[in-house]
Amino acid sequence: MSQQRNDRPDGDLRNTGMSLRHDREWDYELDRIVEEVEERGAETVGLQFPEGLKRRGPGVADDLRESLPDDVSVMISGQPCYGACDLDTYLMKRTDVFVHFGHSPMKDSNKILYVPLFSNVDVFPIIEEAIGNQLASPDEDPDVGLVTTAQHMNKFEEMREFLEDEGYTVHTRRGDDRLTHEGQVLGCNYESADIDADQVLYVGGGKFHPLGLAMEHQDKNVVIADPVNNAVTIADAEQFLKERYASVHKAMDAESWGVIFCTKIGQGRWEEAQEIVDNNDDAYLITMDEITPDRLLNFGMDAYVNTGCPRITTDDGPQFHAPMLTPGEYKIAIGEKPLDELEFDTFHGTW
Amino acid sequence: MSQQRNDRPDGDLRNTGMSLRHDREWDYELDRIVEEVEERGAETVGLQFPEGLKRRGPGVADDLRESLPDDVSVMISGQPCYGACDLDTYLMKRTDVFVHFGHSPMKDSNKILYVPLFSNVDVFPIIEEAIGNQLASPDEDPDVGLVTTAQHMNKFEEMREFLEDEGYTVHTRRGDDRLTHEGQVLGCNYESADIDADQVLYVGGGKFHPLGLAMEHQDKNVVIADPVNNAVTIADAEQFLKERYASVHKAMDAESWGVIFCTKIGQGRWEEAQEIVDNNDDAYLITMDEITPDRLLNFGMDAYVNTGCPRITTDDGPQFHAPMLTPGEYKIAIGEKPLDELEFDTFHGTW
Repeated sequence: MSQQRNDRPDGDLRNTGMSLRHDREWDYELDRIVEEVEERGAETVGLQFPEGLKRRGPGVADDLRESLPDDVSVMISGQPCYGACDLDTYLMKRTDVFVHFGHSPMKDSNKILYVPLFSNVDVFPIIEEAIGNQLASPDEDPDVGLVTTAQHMNKFEEMREFLEDEGYTVHTRRGDDRLTHEGQVLGCNYESADIDADQVLYVGGGKFHPLGLAMEHQDKNVVIADPVNNAVTIADAEQFLKERYASVHKAMDAESWGVIFCTKIGQGRWEEAQEIVDNNDDAYLITMDEITPDRLLNFGMDAYVNTGCPRITTDDGPQFHAPMLTPGEYKIAIGEKPLDELEFDTFHGTW
Repeated sequence: MSQQRNDRPDGDLRNTGMSLRHDREWDYELDRIVEEVEERGAETVGLQFPEGLKRRGPGVADDLRESLPDDVSVMISGQPCYGACDLDTYLMKRTDVFVHFGHSPMKDSNKILYVPLFSNVDVFPIIEEAIGNQLASPDEDPDVGLVTTAQHMNKFEEMREFLEDEGYTVHTRRGDDRLTHEGQVLGCNYESADIDADQVLYVGGGKFHPLGLAMEHQDKNVVIADPVNNAVTIADAEQFLKERYASVHKAMDAESWGVIFCTKIGQGRWEEAQEIVDNNDDAYLITMDEITPDRLLNFGMDAYVNTGCPRITTDDGPQFHAPMLTPGEYKIAIGEKPLDELEFDTFHGTW
């Protein structure tokens, strides 16, 4: 064993009985993976991690190789991975057991073993801090929506009870079948926040999800209780919205349109893409998996419509050399819809 | 039709009978594509262009749509494409006719229509300029190897005759089955230059191919006659070779190895990758299509072995955060082979 790997922080030993040499915050459910390999008589195991956890891949592979028979090959996906919508289908098709870490199932499949990687950070101190500050107190407004991400779903009922004990009426929803759990949000889907309350409490790390939520539900106050960065803030989507309007205006003069169909398993909207191309002689269907400024630069179109991940459009859009619109924004740019119908693009269903 | 597309330069009308609105240097063989669509009763057509020609995609799509029935959908691949080894298999599997432009067939398939895009630049003035200058005159050394790329293969026999008329003995070879034509080189395969001559004349644009040739055949003088940039030069691989030695030395201390298996259809060397991982407990198999510094940075390994495209290793290697070696260089770094056996990594066979 190398020095470098010894330096990795010790892992969470509670559930596996194995000596993990990685982050103690996550349980990789190695016993479940080993069991599955044995049950299926698998010879190949594929591991896929989200970007932020790829560095843990070698450590997890080490632990698996220690427990698995010598003739079982472990492979790690090097493809970018930004969600449960973003499975490495190449590796999935070519391995007997394919493990997808860090996201909840968008669609169940015998082929895929989903390991959710629940965070064990304590969420309650930061929720408490939000109450009566950014989140209106129960006296002012007792109705509150509650949403979180896959990483904290294991605490969801406790969060609800905590808020109820404080005197709130907690509104939750499951959303559509793209979402696995009650109260869960994805970067592209906030149906679980479509509830009868003017304020929504988002519990989770980072601003990616709550900013989408604030774009989708512009009439609601979105309070972020971030237990990872230990901060309470309000999600402010104004900058994003300004950029959306600017992009739509710029695209109004476009004389050539690249219509992107994303080939990632959970990011394809074929009908939307096809409809645009069928009705516009200046539109060209372009198929790709990763949608990047470099790749589109080569085509030199005046504007693009992205039918893939909406967050590439809203979050990365300004980095592209030409305006990139959502399918709804495209309709505004070509005059089919009024400007005041501009809304956040959401993604529904699975595949 | 938009103003922008009218501004595109006129096309080559000689072979198609159609009004092309693009580069006059290429014949996209639109009639052959239309014929194939009719014969197969195709409903979907996929087009794949190399990076440098992607900008022509919309123009070619326009022309095809004008000639094809309205219910035929034309799609353009947005995936990067660096050779005949790099087919967009997603689009290939999902379209009735799949057209790959700009490369000669690495392997024939009923599914794929290869359109070679022969350059119509005049190659002979620059060959003439090379003779007796960088290329030894027939009196000094009558033996010369002749190689070129897919773009100029249509002139190969004329080039040979031209050199023979000048008094040379021209040596040519077909190489292995990765190469379609006698005298053809690829960035990863220079078997066609494995001939009995101390000097090789490369006719073609750019330095990418002749630099590989100079790395592979370090004992030969590689003269570049570049009709595109109108320049005669000698291919000097010294900088590349220095970088190779530096990378090998740096990797000698590595305690963790990422072994990359490239999932592109013509860039996979499974046995090589598997062999390394089977024999080194500190090696981890990583599967991916595009091999980029960003993607590998996430894994944080000490060194990488790239069993995919050798040119990513030699040309882009220094841009990666950790040393990246070819499979042969890896053997040197771990002490299985002496340093003086360092040689250029070549790719053989098809898939």
